[in-house]
Amino acid sequence: MGRRDLSPEQIVRLEAGAVVLLDQRRLPDEEVELRCESAADVADAIRTLAVRGAPAIGVAAAYGYALAAARGEDLDAAYRVLAESRPTAVNLVWALEQMRDDPSAERARALHEAEVDRCRRMGAHAAALFGPGTKALTHCNAGGLATGGYGSAVGALRAAWEEGLLAHVWVDETRPLLQGARLTAWELETLGVPHAVIADSAAAHLMSRGEVDCIVTGADRIAANGDSANKIGTYGLAVAAAHHRIPLYVVAPTSTIDHATATGAGIPIEERDGAEISTRFEAHNPAFDVTPAELITAIVTEVGVHRSPYGESLPR
Amino acid sequence: MGRRDLSPEQIVRLEAGAVVLLDQRRLPDEEVELRCESAADVADAIRTLAVRGAPAIGVAAAYGYALAAARGEDLDAAYRVLAESRPTAVNLVWALEQMRDDPSAERARALHEAEVDRCRRMGAHAAALFGPGTKALTHCNAGGLATGGYGSAVGALRAAWEEGLLAHVWVDETRPLLQGARLTAWELETLGVPHAVIADSAAAHLMSRGEVDCIVTGADRIAANGDSANKIGTYGLAVAAAHHRIPLYVVAPTSTIDHATATGAGIPIEERDGAEISTRFEAHNPAFDVTPAELITAIVTEVGVHRSPYGESLPR
Repeated sequence: MGRRDLSPEQIVRLEAGAVVLLDQRRLPDEEVELRCESAADVADAIRTLAVRGAPAIGVAAAYGYALAAARGEDLDAAYRVLAESRPTAVNLVWALEQMRDDPSAERARALHEAEVDRCRRMGAHAAALFGPGTKALTHCNAGGLATGGYGSAVGALRAAWEEGLLAHVWVDETRPLLQGARLTAWELETLGVPHAVIADSAAAHLMSRGEVDCIVTGADRIAANGDSANKIGTYGLAVAAAHHRIPLYVVAPTSTIDHATATGAGIPIEERDGAEISTRFEAHNPAFDVTPAELITAIVTEVGVHRSPYGESLPR
Repeated sequence: MGRRDLSPEQIVRLEAGAVVLLDQRRLPDEEVELRCESAADVADAIRTLAVRGAPAIGVAAAYGYALAAARGEDLDAAYRVLAESRPTAVNLVWALEQMRDDPSAERARALHEAEVDRCRRMGAHAAALFGPGTKALTHCNAGGLATGGYGSAVGALRAAWEEGLLAHVWVDETRPLLQGARLTAWELETLGVPHAVIADSAAAHLMSRGEVDCIVTGADRIAANGDSANKIGTYGLAVAAAHHRIPLYVVAPTSTIDHATATGAGIPIEERDGAEISTRFEAHNPAFDVTPAELITAIVTEVGVHRSPYGESLPR
């Protein structure tokens, strides 16, 4: 197992005439870069999951908008195509709003740096919740790949590992697109953190055997009351965690909090192509689910650790 | 969608000099038969999941034992190799015990016919629990393929469908080996029952949206107190079902009940090769989990519907 860092520029950067992304669809087998030469190219990369994870999508969209400005594209059209590329991620629109009055490369790079800095702060806050010898479980990839650097949930694991508090990570493979088995396992291997990939449906069994001390996930959108949308399967983990009295920590930047949406009922759930599940039979493929606030032990942002009632504790 | 029956002989039969199995590893793409010419060949077929599902394994082992007798193999060795081919399934040993004093082809065929007949009776008992317009969810394949004909959990769905009570079936794809996405979907398509395959981790989300009226699964082994071992993921479904107050029905023949094992704690859990999950990273692959009796609404056998306390209600 190697131990090598993963720089923010490796994951996404703006060059002259292109946004360059590490193509996450090709990992872990190949480290291939994808050049996006217009806002529409970036939107395609987001839609097809070459770049995924709410904060990384926001960073990519910001670079895409700066690219559109540099190329003299119609900025309203660029905004729209980028904003509509994934319906669930609220910080996609947040990042674009940050770019509106200054669509420069410098602004986009500052936004990217700030994102990585937020992850480091989130990681430090979250690691303080870990006891010694913690066996954690995580779902999907809320890692450096998902955030443009360091990671939110994986950032928490990384900080806990650096502080000597982490014994092992169970990595949900995360069907249908296997972001856990492909991306989180790749990140943890790169960082030298002990881990094992499991079938998503094995998580509750491991909880019943005392093999899970906490669950750490990211979020794609957090409603004002703390209800959190994240990759499909997070809700089932939360129900199982509550049944076993295991804490569930949601680690996400404040840009993920959507104060305009009162509860999870107002969060649109992206339905993706059933062919991701089965090309042979009919399939139904909701990509996200909503975990109600009452099943979340704490929400950790770059500001600190927030607890129920989230309507009062979440930073504005 | 066709509507075609699936005969018990198609799934497993004894010919002169061979046990012939429909190779379930090749479904749904190809319908290929596998010829097993010794007890060891049959044990290999069981171990490698060419035939799977507790009752079907029992039938295959009975035929394998009859084949060994016809070939003049050492019957103690044949018993051992067959009995050890899968550790969780109790009716594997049950079927072999049935064969000990009469290891004839006729005895094995009678055992097979009785298995299919039991499924039909289980199906009828279970269907009586369904209300009109039921949306059911099932896990793995407790179908005709798993039982040598008709099916246990799928038999219940089939009986409910024939009585006009079933609106839709959600089919858990059932990682890592995709028995739901490959086998149950294939059976339901063959039978013309409306269905959609889902990622295992989408089940709790569908429950939260009111899209699941009941969960129907098989069992590989049922302890005397009703604790039931079944395909990994069943326990997580049971926890989520209890959270949403959705009934969970375990449909399995009485041969699955292991009165010698007091509780689920005494059931060995087969750990399979992590390579079924990931060949690139370390993986952990428990193949079964145990659902405690208190999360099971009813256990349905060929005798009838049994309810808690199972220690008293389960037939001996």
